[in-house]
Amino acid sequence: MDPNRCVLVVCDGLADRPIAELGGKTPLEAAETPSLDELARAGINGIIDPLSPGVPPGSDAANLALLGYDPFKVYRGRGPFEALGCGIRVQPRDVAFRTNFATLDDNLLLVDRRAGRKIDHVEELVKALEGLGSEEYPDVEVIFGHSVEHRGAIVLRGKGLSMRVSDPDPHVLGIRIPDSVPLDDSVEAKKTAFIVNELTRLSYKILRDHPVNRKRKEKGLPPANVLLLRGTGMLPQIEKLETRFGIKSAAIVANALVRGVCASVGMRLIDVPGATGRVDTDTLAKARYIVRNLEHFDLIYTHIKGADSASHDGNLKMKMKMIQKIDGLIGYLMDHIESESVYLAITADHTTPVPVGNHTGEPVPITISGPGVRVDDVTTFSEVACAKGGLGRLLGRELMPTLMNYLGNAAMYGA
Amino acid sequence: MDPNRCVLVVCDGLADRPIAELGGKTPLEAAETPSLDELARAGINGIIDPLSPGVPPGSDAANLALLGYDPFKVYRGRGPFEALGCGIRVQPRDVAFRTNFATLDDNLLLVDRRAGRKIDHVEELVKALEGLGSEEYPDVEVIFGHSVEHRGAIVLRGKGLSMRVSDPDPHVLGIRIPDSVPLDDSVEAKKTAFIVNELTRLSYKILRDHPVNRKRKEKGLPPANVLLLRGTGMLPQIEKLETRFGIKSAAIVANALVRGVCASVGMRLIDVPGATGRVDTDTLAKARYIVRNLEHFDLIYTHIKGADSASHDGNLKMKMKMIQKIDGLIGYLMDHIESESVYLAITADHTTPVPVGNHTGEPVPITISGPGVRVDDVTTFSEVACAKGGLGRLLGRELMPTLMNYLGNAAMYGA
Repeated sequence: MDPNRCVLVVCDGLADRPIAELGGKTPLEAAETPSLDELARAGINGIIDPLSPGVPPGSDAANLALLGYDPFKVYRGRGPFEALGCGIRVQPRDVAFRTNFATLDDNLLLVDRRAGRKIDHVEELVKALEGLGSEEYPDVEVIFGHSVEHRGAIVLRGKGLSMRVSDPDPHVLGIRIPDSVPLDDSVEAKKTAFIVNELTRLSYKILRDHPVNRKRKEKGLPPANVLLLRGTGMLPQIEKLETRFGIKSAAIVANALVRGVCASVGMRLIDVPGATGRVDTDTLAKARYIVRNLEHFDLIYTHIKGADSASHDGNLKMKMKMIQKIDGLIGYLMDHIESESVYLAITADHTTPVPVGNHTGEPVPITISGPGVRVDDVTTFSEVACAKGGLGRLLGRELMPTLMNYLGNAAMYGA
Repeated sequence: MDPNRCVLVVCDGLADRPIAELGGKTPLEAAETPSLDELARAGINGIIDPLSPGVPPGSDAANLALLGYDPFKVYRGRGPFEALGCGIRVQPRDVAFRTNFATLDDNLLLVDRRAGRKIDHVEELVKALEGLGSEEYPDVEVIFGHSVEHRGAIVLRGKGLSMRVSDPDPHVLGIRIPDSVPLDDSVEAKKTAFIVNELTRLSYKILRDHPVNRKRKEKGLPPANVLLLRGTGMLPQIEKLETRFGIKSAAIVANALVRGVCASVGMRLIDVPGATGRVDTDTLAKARYIVRNLEHFDLIYTHIKGADSASHDGNLKMKMKMIQKIDGLIGYLMDHIESESVYLAITADHTTPVPVGNHTGEPVPITISGPGVRVDDVTTFSEVACAKGGLGRLLGRELMPTLMNYLGNAAMYGA
């Protein structure tokens, strides 16, 4: 393993705020994290504003930034990332939406935006939606994909489409699904809004009396009888990571959205059995796959979801447990990769404080260790300790150039 | 000496990485630098990304940034800076190239891009090239200048020129010099490429049988028988330093490229006998000239080249020696300038690690001392120590406004 390589571990929502229950410490400060602390001691530390100070980042924008792009300039909606994460090969001109299986009552009022979330035999519903398409515009191809639970994506492909249409998702219950409306005067926006509304109507027509839903009603479960389209967007128009830095890169990510972000910048997706995107994920399996694949790639981007879910659920105990699992993963990596030639970096994609239960805009800690790194005097990996490190305060999009500089893959500007 | 003044000392390639031979310290950490450390204790410290985190800066772009400009917006090639550094008064519409005296063999194959670098009686070759010009376009003025060794510059002046042409320099040996080709469809680019190719051909015609070259061949030295044009560019369209900040400024710089950058922003160039732009440079002579000229200027920009050359040559011992010389210069300045009215700032234009032998993208340390500066608790001048200072992490182009604010020459924005 001769040329320098890099493993970047991104822990979803890892950063937090001081919590009274922990004596005013953050979960990261309170947890026993011998491996993370050893890495901090061996490396250079700092804090990162994923997007910009104070701006709470969405998951897609945060991960796009950590991959080296400026979301304020290139981000154009969540739909295309969800679609890529569902395995749809999204094209530059496609208009994409994320979708929810949702529930309408007999008066067509929206009563559950997630159709109960857990949907047994959902694959039969997905199959029933095969061939879903616009009756008015048969020249527009409609591609539907499903990831987990109620989640999926729809891609529209064809001439004369626009992403300038409103989401039908009202985000409230007890009303009919509102029409998507064009957001400008173009014929493209009018055509696209028309198709979106047709698809909502057609999905209800197909799903309403489907046997799976009849059984759900019998059991008192909300029927998954309509597709709710949301997160309208198109792919960012960006140079792929490989072209930009001349590297081969792979992503080990379970979460569909972040998988989509990684796919959008041209990373190879590596599937790891046991990696679930939930708190029960097998972090050591991820670590083994990182080590095993490292010889084939210059950069392996690993995303670990659990801590964020624990924060969203307000589950401090689960967050502490997830931090232990992350510490174990880092320990495994430190034991199994060549520190003379491999950079190991760990950070979070955003702050998700347990007491808040949602993303907030504070910076996240970052540690980078590896050959030639200027070692500072930080001795623990935490939100406050890392702020005094040698990296100072960076923007999310500045991390990738920082790593590429260490790898020798950053192009000189000027002469 | 009443109004506040500033001396900015920029040490080329001073910043480095931890080096095993130095017990994991950087050269700056390992060297005895009592004066630099005293300055750090007396001042405010920080780190600077010359261009942007992780981006390795070229020398021209880095110095342009430290002078307060954004190279990503204004930089248009190295040629015009080299030409200014050769003493040519480059005009806004000129298209400029740096040139190498190079060697073609009898089959017109390029065999030495620098004609052996050391060229005795080079001034006779320069004289022979007087009047070099396009036979096809006599309305275009061709101005040739020489700096040191094989280095020089050519400026094209006249109507209908473009910088959108490729460099003829192939950067490899054993092939013929390729034609310059227009990079767009304009008649200006076609005309300019035509002239470049003509000049390459004409320079060979003039130099091939020149007595200096006949003697070189007799001695077994590579003849300097062709001009290799490279670094195509035009002057940045920028407001001069004097206009922008209302200051009189001077540069004490030996290196032709950096002299050119300083000239491009309107600085007066002060020549110092004994300042060579090499590791043998007389740093104390520079210091004396700074002190002597300080009453005439608000800002004196001093560039010291040696440490960068030592790094490029992988010569750690020479870099350590150069750091000692820089420490001596700073000591002299501290002893001879009025600390009540003169700001003394020291930084590097980029990192050039000895183990890498080229520019890399890490930040560089900065110290500023002078009246009213908020003194922090940094006690040594080094890459890691300064990172904990009161300035935090700045961009290169933010340094000049920072200094101008101390001088009272920064305009208020808003009211």
